[in-house]
Amino acid sequence: MTVIYDKVALLGLGLIASSMAHAMRAGGLVREISGHARTADTRAVALEIAICDTVHASAAEAVRDADLVVLAVPVGAMGAIAAEIAPFLKPGATVTDVGSVKQSVIDAVAPHMPPSVHFVPGHPIAGTEYSGPRAGFATLFQNRWWLLTPLAQADMAAVARLRALLEAMGAKVDEMDAPHHDLVLAVTSHTPHLIAYTMVGVADDLRRVTDSEVIKYSAAGFRDFTRIAASDPTMWRDVFLNNKDATLEILGRFTEELFALQRAIRTGDGDHLFEYFTRTRAIRRGIIEAGQDTAAPDFGRSAEKT
Amino acid sequence: MTVIYDKVALLGLGLIASSMAHAMRAGGLVREISGHARTADTRAVALEIAICDTVHASAAEAVRDADLVVLAVPVGAMGAIAAEIAPFLKPGATVTDVGSVKQSVIDAVAPHMPPSVHFVPGHPIAGTEYSGPRAGFATLFQNRWWLLTPLAQADMAAVARLRALLEAMGAKVDEMDAPHHDLVLAVTSHTPHLIAYTMVGVADDLRRVTDSEVIKYSAAGFRDFTRIAASDPTMWRDVFLNNKDATLEILGRFTEELFALQRAIRTGDGDHLFEYFTRTRAIRRGIIEAGQDTAAPDFGRSAEKT
Repeated sequence: MTVIYDKVALLGLGLIASSMAHAMRAGGLVREISGHARTADTRAVALEIAICDTVHASAAEAVRDADLVVLAVPVGAMGAIAAEIAPFLKPGATVTDVGSVKQSVIDAVAPHMPPSVHFVPGHPIAGTEYSGPRAGFATLFQNRWWLLTPLAQADMAAVARLRALLEAMGAKVDEMDAPHHDLVLAVTSHTPHLIAYTMVGVADDLRRVTDSEVIKYSAAGFRDFTRIAASDPTMWRDVFLNNKDATLEILGRFTEELFALQRAIRTGDGDHLFEYFTRTRAIRRGIIEAGQDTAAPDFGRSAEKT
Repeated sequence: MTVIYDKVALLGLGLIASSMAHAMRAGGLVREISGHARTADTRAVALEIAICDTVHASAAEAVRDADLVVLAVPVGAMGAIAAEIAPFLKPGATVTDVGSVKQSVIDAVAPHMPPSVHFVPGHPIAGTEYSGPRAGFATLFQNRWWLLTPLAQADMAAVARLRALLEAMGAKVDEMDAPHHDLVLAVTSHTPHLIAYTMVGVADDLRRVTDSEVIKYSAAGFRDFTRIAASDPTMWRDVFLNNKDATLEILGRFTEELFALQRAIRTGDGDHLFEYFTRTRAIRRGIIEAGQDTAAPDFGRSAEKT
């Protein structure tokens, strides 16, 4: 492998940044990694597991001489950290982010960026229900999409270089504009997460069905929701606050369809239900054929593992 | 292992019945398995993969001399098949079912049962998104719950014998009354399935977000919903039509909570969202501690497999 950036600064050392560190090291893609985390705990863990060469309490120090700066903090914290590092960025450096929402990150970050710096917003569609620096692993991005939403005036060479890094980490890269990204993700991620959170909250609230029964009998479908609803609360709060319009629009569509199915149940319209459930089955096949999920029954969970 | 029943008749040869056949054979738990399926295709597959010793076009023939009869057809077909086999049941035989709803199955089946026969309703909380006789495997019930909802006048010895079979197949057995079962399952299974079907249907409907984008970027959460929404349409139609009251009640609660979260998004109430998302995270830990799911990130999906 070739070195793509001499020095990379990771700001925020959670699941995504630590996985990037593992992947970049595994591929020999960078010479030096500096890191910044807000809490002393996270910095101590990062040093202990050696995902960074240097770890800094100050984001401004971490970005010194960095050729690539990765903003890997919750979406709501992007603007503040961009303002903080702006005066210390190396001319010619590329700044990217890994936020799950793109337009609001652009609005918050772009105004702070000096003209000598290339800002290329990005979003890796990869993750697990775990968070923090210990959750990272080198293969997280293998065969996963990493979406870039470059601005109109983006420097082609800077985008190409970033893309080379992402592809070398195993990701497939696509480019689209930010508003379209935010709508697509509202469908494939944000609304599903909100719904999963809601269903788990309902189960947790019910007094007649005790916690222990919900947990014991969760294998019937509910446990898949709980995995999604175990994701990082700060990250998800910021996603919903920052992709408000698209999420509310898709939620509106969802509620409309849910009410139609609810009415079919109430009136005993079996044909409506059967047709609906048959249609949705096909989309699963598409996802497996596209290599975006395993065809193994139950995700390949084995009786031994569970 | 000891033989628990001499002859078992499986009526309906889908995922559950074929998994029972594999598990009973693997454990040497029965001497003979007869099977019945409505379609010639399914009967041919059952013979080809040898899950039954004999396969019958007639359910009445299949139950001849059987010590245990398992009704493994969709919930909506239970009453008709019970009426059909009733005159041919061996005195002293046990009849059980594997329906996901219990009260409506009891209402449909019990009136047909001769006094000489023990009817013990049951529900294995196990399954995958696949259906049909080829989908079965011997370990499906390992460490999974199998709920029995015996009637007030149930024969204790017959219940104990059935329980012994289920435990020998690896299941953990609990008993509860039918209405409580139906409410618990509305929370842990029926409503989550309806919601997953709805979300996948919404994604499928959207014109601005093409199918291919939804599929490509599904790893962001949506793909977990599509697995659930790929389940057998006939089975699920019948579940909703037959557990109407409990499902509508839980759906009502769900909608109420969803509207509260929707309002929090609209008004930018980050604290409400953060608190809600923090609370739901705990329930996931409970499920893993109870051995009902794997703690492996992303269900242990590996980059290689997907």
